[in-house]
Amino acid sequence: MDLPKPKNKQKMVVIIGAGFAGLTLARRLSSKYFQVLLLDKNNYHQFQPLLYQVATCGLEPSSISFPLRKAFQRNPNVFIRITEVQGIDAGTNTINTSIGDIAYDYLVLAHGAETNYFMKMQLQQNALSMKSVSEALLLRNTLLQNYEQALTSKSAEEKAALLNVVIVGGGPTGVELAGAIAEMKMTILPKEYTELNFQTMEIYLLEAAPGLLNGMSEYAGITVREYLQNLGVKVQLNATVQDYDGQSVLLSNGESIHSRCLIWAAGVKGADMQGLPASSVASNNRILVDEFNRVNNLQRVFAIGDVALMRDEQLVKGHPQVAPVAIQQAKLLAKNLKSLETQKQMLPFQYRDKGSMATVGRNLAVAEMGAIKVRGFVAWLIWMMVHLMSIIGIKNRIFILINWVWQYITYDQSLRLIIKPSKKNHEKIILHATSGHGAIRKPAVGM
Amino acid sequence: MDLPKPKNKQKMVVIIGAGFAGLTLARRLSSKYFQVLLLDKNNYHQFQPLLYQVATCGLEPSSISFPLRKAFQRNPNVFIRITEVQGIDAGTNTINTSIGDIAYDYLVLAHGAETNYFMKMQLQQNALSMKSVSEALLLRNTLLQNYEQALTSKSAEEKAALLNVVIVGGGPTGVELAGAIAEMKMTILPKEYTELNFQTMEIYLLEAAPGLLNGMSEYAGITVREYLQNLGVKVQLNATVQDYDGQSVLLSNGESIHSRCLIWAAGVKGADMQGLPASSVASNNRILVDEFNRVNNLQRVFAIGDVALMRDEQLVKGHPQVAPVAIQQAKLLAKNLKSLETQKQMLPFQYRDKGSMATVGRNLAVAEMGAIKVRGFVAWLIWMMVHLMSIIGIKNRIFILINWVWQYITYDQSLRLIIKPSKKNHEKIILHATSGHGAIRKPAVGM
Repeated sequence: MDLPKPKNKQKMVVIIGAGFAGLTLARRLSSKYFQVLLLDKNNYHQFQPLLYQVATCGLEPSSISFPLRKAFQRNPNVFIRITEVQGIDAGTNTINTSIGDIAYDYLVLAHGAETNYFMKMQLQQNALSMKSVSEALLLRNTLLQNYEQALTSKSAEEKAALLNVVIVGGGPTGVELAGAIAEMKMTILPKEYTELNFQTMEIYLLEAAPGLLNGMSEYAGITVREYLQNLGVKVQLNATVQDYDGQSVLLSNGESIHSRCLIWAAGVKGADMQGLPASSVASNNRILVDEFNRVNNLQRVFAIGDVALMRDEQLVKGHPQVAPVAIQQAKLLAKNLKSLETQKQMLPFQYRDKGSMATVGRNLAVAEMGAIKVRGFVAWLIWMMVHLMSIIGIKNRIFILINWVWQYITYDQSLRLIIKPSKKNHEKIILHATSGHGAIRKPAVGM
Repeated sequence: MDLPKPKNKQKMVVIIGAGFAGLTLARRLSSKYFQVLLLDKNNYHQFQPLLYQVATCGLEPSSISFPLRKAFQRNPNVFIRITEVQGIDAGTNTINTSIGDIAYDYLVLAHGAETNYFMKMQLQQNALSMKSVSEALLLRNTLLQNYEQALTSKSAEEKAALLNVVIVGGGPTGVELAGAIAEMKMTILPKEYTELNFQTMEIYLLEAAPGLLNGMSEYAGITVREYLQNLGVKVQLNATVQDYDGQSVLLSNGESIHSRCLIWAAGVKGADMQGLPASSVASNNRILVDEFNRVNNLQRVFAIGDVALMRDEQLVKGHPQVAPVAIQQAKLLAKNLKSLETQKQMLPFQYRDKGSMATVGRNLAVAEMGAIKVRGFVAWLIWMMVHLMSIIGIKNRIFILINWVWQYITYDQSLRLIIKPSKKNHEKIILHATSGHGAIRKPAVGM
C-alpha cells in the first residue's frame, strides 16, 4: 500500500468497515498516536435505520448515504480505500485485500452483519433482503415492476401473487416495512394503478416468536400489532417459513402463500472474515471479544459493532446489534487504544441503553426510554426527531425533512422510479467480478 | 392488451416514447375523441438537459425524473405500459411489443434519438454516453471509481490515464460536461483525494468542426471556448476521433491521448424501429414526415420529436433535435388529430425558435434569443431559471434549487456516491433479457 509514512511513532490502525462503529472510531482516534486506514466496499456510509424508506419510495439513497471522503475532508490523518477484504493473517499482522496486502499495528474489525438465511439456499436465492442501499433499491424496483407486470398478466392467480407481499421477521425492520407498504396500498397505489384491484393485495408479516418487537416490552409488541392490523396487515405469530421458490412461501405448518415478493428480515449473522482462529468465532458468525472488544486469542485485533460478540453470565447472547452499541464501543475503543499506547489501564465496555423505538407509519409509533413508554403521535414525533438528528450531513437532514413533510401533506411517496443499471454497467460488473475481486464470498448479500 | 373498451367512438392512439414529445401529446389529446396508450421502456420521464449534472454528482436521478403514472394520475383516459416495442406492422395497424401485440387507430412514434457511434464498434463498446439517467449514473460511477483506482495504481502513466477525461462533441452536452468536470477538478477533487495530484489531470474537449456550439452564433462558440480554456479545459477544434480501445483515444491526425474515460457526445441518430418502409427512413435513422408530422407513405402513423425528420428546401437537415421542437410538434399534432376526426383541415408545422443557451459553470453561460445575445452571469441566471421552470414537478424544482444554492455556496457537488446494483439485480437483468424481452436491439444504449 502506498500510504504516506506515519509521522514519528504513529501506529497504523486499519479499520474494516465504515458503518456506525468504523466511522465513529476513525473520527475519534488521536492523530498524535495513530495513522488510520479505513476500508470499505463502498465509498459511502449508509444510515441503515432508514433503508426501509428507500425501499418504499420515500427517500433517495443519497439522503441516507454519506460519502466517506467528505466525512474525512478535514482529517488528513485518515486514509480511505474502497476494497473487498479477503482475509486476515494475524501471524504477520497483515490483511489481504483486492488491492494488495496491508500491514497493521492494530486491526479493528467493524464489518458488520449480513442477512442470515439459516442455510436455506433456495430461500436465499429468491428472497429479497435489505441490508444495503443497493438491496433497498432492488426491493423498490421489484415492488414497482410487480405492479407493472400484474397489469399485463392474464391469470387472476398470478395477478394476486404479484401484488402480495410477505415480510418475514417481526423486528423493527419488518414492522416498519409492513407499515410503509400498507400505507402505499391505501394511498398512492390505487390512485396510480387504477386498473388493478388493491383490495386483493395482502401484506403478511410473519414472526416465529409469539410477539412482535422482541427487543422491546410486550406492551410495545402488542401496540404495534394492533397498529398493523388496523392498516390491514396480516400479522401471523409463531409462524416459521420453511422455503420459498419465488412463487409460493411454504410455512412450517404446511400452509402456503402465493407471493412474488418475500422480504427476509428474520435474522442476521456476522459477515464473513477469513483467517480468524475458529475459537474466536461464535455461532452466527459473530466474533468473540473480551470486555475491551479485543478478539479472543488475538492481541492486536479488535472487533466492534454488530460483528462483535461480548458476553458474560448475564448477557449470554451479547449486546443487541444496534447502532448505539456500535457507537459506544467505538468511542471507548478510541480511548482504550490510546491507553494502550500510553501504558494506561484500558476500561471495560458498559452499554448504556438509551431506549428503543419503532414506527409503523403516519402518527403511529412506539418508544421506550427506561420506564417511560409512549405510543402514537408523540412516539412518532420522537422517532422522527431522533432519526433526523442521528443522520450525518445537514443537507441530508434538510432533504429528509422536506420529503417527510411532503409525504405527510400529500400522502404521496413520490420516488416511484424503476431505475435500472445501464447494460454497460452490467458488463463492467461481470468483468470486475472475474478480474480484480477474486474473492466474492457473499453472493446473495454483497453489493 | 387488456384495456378498458374505448368509450363511444373514441379512437385508440398509441404513443411510443414518453419524452418531451410523447408526454406533451398524451396530455393534450382530447378525451372526447381519443383513448391514449402511452408506451415507454421506463416508468418515468427524464429531463435530458440536466443529465450532465447527474453525471457530475450535482443532482440525483429522481430530481430530473418524473414517474409517468404520477403525471397522469388525474387523466383516466391515458393508459400506461412499460414495455420494449419490437416493431410495427402498418398493414394490420398493430405494433409488436414484449407484452404482446397492440392494435391502434393512430400510432405516434416519439421514441427519440440515441447515441450515434457511426459504426465504430470498438469505440461504442468502450465509450460512455449520456442519453439516459442510467447512463449518466454509469458515467458518475466511472469517474469516481477511476479516482479510487488511481490511488492504488503503481504506474504514473496509469494514474494519469485514470484521471484524464476526453469528451468528444462540442455541442451543449459536451460543453456543459467539460465545464462541470473542470469545476470539480478545481474544487472538490483535490480536497477529497489529497493523495492524488490533480495538476496532472487533463480534460479534453474535442470537436470535429472549426467551432463549438454550432447551433448558436459564432460569438457564442468563441465565448464558451474562452470560458472553458480559463477553466483549464483543452479545447481542440477540427479534431476527429478515429478509435478508442478503452486505454488510448486515437485521433485522425495520428495523435493519441491516454484516458480511461471517453465520453461520446458527438452525434445522435433516430432510435431503431422495425417495420417501417425503407423509403420512410432517412440517413441517421430519422423518420421522414410531411408538414403534419405524418410518416411518409403511411396514413395513420405519425412521428414527432427527435426521431422525426421534416425537411423542405430551406431546411435540408430538418429541425434541431431539441425539446422545444418536440413540444411544439406534440401540441400541434394533438390539434391535428382532432381535426382529422372532425373532418377539419390540418395545420402545417411551423417552428417558433425561442432561442438557445448553454452553460459552462458558475456564472458562465451564453444565451441567445433572436437578436438578443447575453453572456456571463446574466446568461447563467437565465439558463437556471429556464431549466428550473421547464422541469416537471414542484418537488423536483425545490430539490434542484436547494442543490444549486448549496453548491454555489459550498463549492461542493455532494452526491459522490458509487451506488452499484445489487448482485441479485444483475441476475434478474440477465433472466429478464433472455425471457420476456426477446428483442433488445440497442445493446449499448438501452437501459
